[in-house]
Amino acid sequence: MRAVDIIRTKRDGSELDADEIASFVRGATDGTGWTDYQLAALLMAIVCRGMTANETAALTRQMADSGKRLDLSDIAGPKVDKHSTGGVGDKTSLILGPLAAACGVIVPMMSGRGLGHTGGTLDKLESIPGFRVNLSEYEFHTALTKVGLALIGQTKDIAPADKKLYALRDVTATVESIPLITASILSKKLAEGISGLVMDVKCGAGAFMKTFQEAKQLAQSLASVGIANGLRVATFVTAMDVPLGRAVGNSLEIIESIETLKGNGPKDLTELSVKLAARMVQLAGLASTIKEAEKRVQNALDTGAGLEVFAQCIAHQGGDPRIIDDYALLPQVSGTMTIVAPRRGFVEMTAGAVGIASMVLGGGRERAEDVIDPSVGIVCRAKAGDRVDGGQVIYEVHYRAMSKLQAALPLLEESFAIADAPPAELPLVLEEST
Amino acid sequence: MRAVDIIRTKRDGSELDADEIASFVRGATDGTGWTDYQLAALLMAIVCRGMTANETAALTRQMADSGKRLDLSDIAGPKVDKHSTGGVGDKTSLILGPLAAACGVIVPMMSGRGLGHTGGTLDKLESIPGFRVNLSEYEFHTALTKVGLALIGQTKDIAPADKKLYALRDVTATVESIPLITASILSKKLAEGISGLVMDVKCGAGAFMKTFQEAKQLAQSLASVGIANGLRVATFVTAMDVPLGRAVGNSLEIIESIETLKGNGPKDLTELSVKLAARMVQLAGLASTIKEAEKRVQNALDTGAGLEVFAQCIAHQGGDPRIIDDYALLPQVSGTMTIVAPRRGFVEMTAGAVGIASMVLGGGRERAEDVIDPSVGIVCRAKAGDRVDGGQVIYEVHYRAMSKLQAALPLLEESFAIADAPPAELPLVLEEST
Repeated sequence: MRAVDIIRTKRDGSELDADEIASFVRGATDGTGWTDYQLAALLMAIVCRGMTANETAALTRQMADSGKRLDLSDIAGPKVDKHSTGGVGDKTSLILGPLAAACGVIVPMMSGRGLGHTGGTLDKLESIPGFRVNLSEYEFHTALTKVGLALIGQTKDIAPADKKLYALRDVTATVESIPLITASILSKKLAEGISGLVMDVKCGAGAFMKTFQEAKQLAQSLASVGIANGLRVATFVTAMDVPLGRAVGNSLEIIESIETLKGNGPKDLTELSVKLAARMVQLAGLASTIKEAEKRVQNALDTGAGLEVFAQCIAHQGGDPRIIDDYALLPQVSGTMTIVAPRRGFVEMTAGAVGIASMVLGGGRERAEDVIDPSVGIVCRAKAGDRVDGGQVIYEVHYRAMSKLQAALPLLEESFAIADAPPAELPLVLEEST
Repeated sequence: MRAVDIIRTKRDGSELDADEIASFVRGATDGTGWTDYQLAALLMAIVCRGMTANETAALTRQMADSGKRLDLSDIAGPKVDKHSTGGVGDKTSLILGPLAAACGVIVPMMSGRGLGHTGGTLDKLESIPGFRVNLSEYEFHTALTKVGLALIGQTKDIAPADKKLYALRDVTATVESIPLITASILSKKLAEGISGLVMDVKCGAGAFMKTFQEAKQLAQSLASVGIANGLRVATFVTAMDVPLGRAVGNSLEIIESIETLKGNGPKDLTELSVKLAARMVQLAGLASTIKEAEKRVQNALDTGAGLEVFAQCIAHQGGDPRIIDDYALLPQVSGTMTIVAPRRGFVEMTAGAVGIASMVLGGGRERAEDVIDPSVGIVCRAKAGDRVDGGQVIYEVHYRAMSKLQAALPLLEESFAIADAPPAELPLVLEEST
């Protein structure tokens, strides 16, 4: 079985069998039988010709098996994770993780870093002084056993084939492929040792999937391939046209997450976090209906049980839990400035531009190797649809370098508009699997 | 202009502009801005999405300009070459080159080596003791000035981008693409410094293009892209279902070429060689009609003028011209065996199998690095359509190693059949540009 023959098969639009896919994944893992240019050629053929559900399921399984699959079977309780395809101001992981864990779900959450206009959970967590995202496997186990929640980065042993393929896809214009996105996401999740996964597929101007149709396709692919690999999967397609919550930026998002766990969060963020957490509880088998699950999660929020888990998680991972009551312990900028509404009317806003402005301020990465500043970012004092008077604050901009502020300002000026009529109110959850 | 953006443009089915194509070709030439896996990804995107005539013309021009373009302007007379997409027993270059040169055409022919079931002109020539295909540019000039014909290999300065891309295409299943084939062929031909080109696109079981439709598409692409780059082009689509002539194998094909130049050649080979040579004469502007051109070529054949040019060419390139009258000076095997018709009837034959049998005997290459044996091969004593009696010789097999003979025999046995009725006689020239 030669690489060139496998590439030819896909190029001609035929289905690859499990052995052919295994050969490809082995090639991506350690180079056996495949060069980088052969991997790239097959990736492009997959982008152009697609993959069947069977092929995608096999690819996902092989990629998960390319490295270590964690064995969490010695930890009692159902293990369920949540994954989002990335958005602006999306800090739900920091809220629903503690809430689900407070309801008895074991949440072994491996997250990523931010790139471009989207933020990353790891970056946000690292704004907490002392917080370690690189736990050893032993520490990860202990955290799950004691706290029920561990928030870490992907270790190098997890799905090495995905690391290789992702690096290649990034520079060969082969990122945009539902089968490849599905396999990349699920291979890492399968390797976590979970039994259930809640997927939040973001859709809109601030998301990777721009249209509902694309987002729905990805959600369906994730569901069917996850199920084919023995996972219980629930999928959501949620709107990402405007920032989720009010805060965009690492330290600022930690504060907003804590406020939300204290019951003072923005409505959209609170609602979505509760909804996703409830699905985790339901997938874990800890509630028989969604309604019951939501009640349990709401209770964990109302009683402060979720906040308590987050505090324990921070402490367990080396962070300073006093930040929960003293935000001054988080990295902060000395200077803020505000952007105000030029006139009375209703706010319109675009998430992507706000995300890029935060990146430009230093809060995100243009390239994977960029170093971020945890303290900078943007707080949306007005949200899309809000009625504002002229002079009322829209954005509070937390900046450090004046040069970066100057680069971010035009982006922010263009990211919102004041309309005469209120915009049509769009639902946050566009679709939800049954 | 980043490689990844150029790849994305083609992946999404859009047209690349001249600058984007120039970037790609520069990357293929010296690696500037492009890695091998990015080149491979774009090649696959081109295979899947195609290229417009404009794109292919730009690609061809850029590839020709990636190295040295020979300047033959100091040699008086029209320079015209012929190129074939490769077949079994196709030795027309060795016949039409001398014939066209005898009619006054300057023929600066750069040829290739055999691979798989197809033979290569260079391999055939090298069976002539002393013959050098690697002339210096100065020697090449001198040969063209004095003889009017030079038969050489592609120098390393000619279209280096094509060398790189071809090597990549071979191992990434991106060979089968009409735009890429067009650019590969014509970039090298443009670099030869010719003004006219006759293209023989082979079509059938023994050719790269299996169907008439594909062959016709390639012929049209070659014509339009050649013309867009200032070449006068004539195209033929010719049948390659059965070997051309009777001899398959390097030394054996040299003998058959000389016999043809002596007027004793097989009908199909003679006819096609004359037809193609006549088109070269016409493209050179040395005859106003095809009929007149054919008359001149036929005259060069009948008078032995073509044979005389071939003898001069051999002598000028270091070969022993005495082979023309003494075939014993060519490499020969000691053993031949014959395969006979099992019964009376009409011969059916498949070119591909005969070509592979010759390769297996040692006359061709399975891989580019294989060393060939010039003496082995097959002579078809009966041709497709011939009426034979049981016991009559079909193939005369020239072999050296018994083990290779044993491997070739079953292929040869399966390469022909005896039918009760004569096969439908198909024309040799399936289509010819006006």
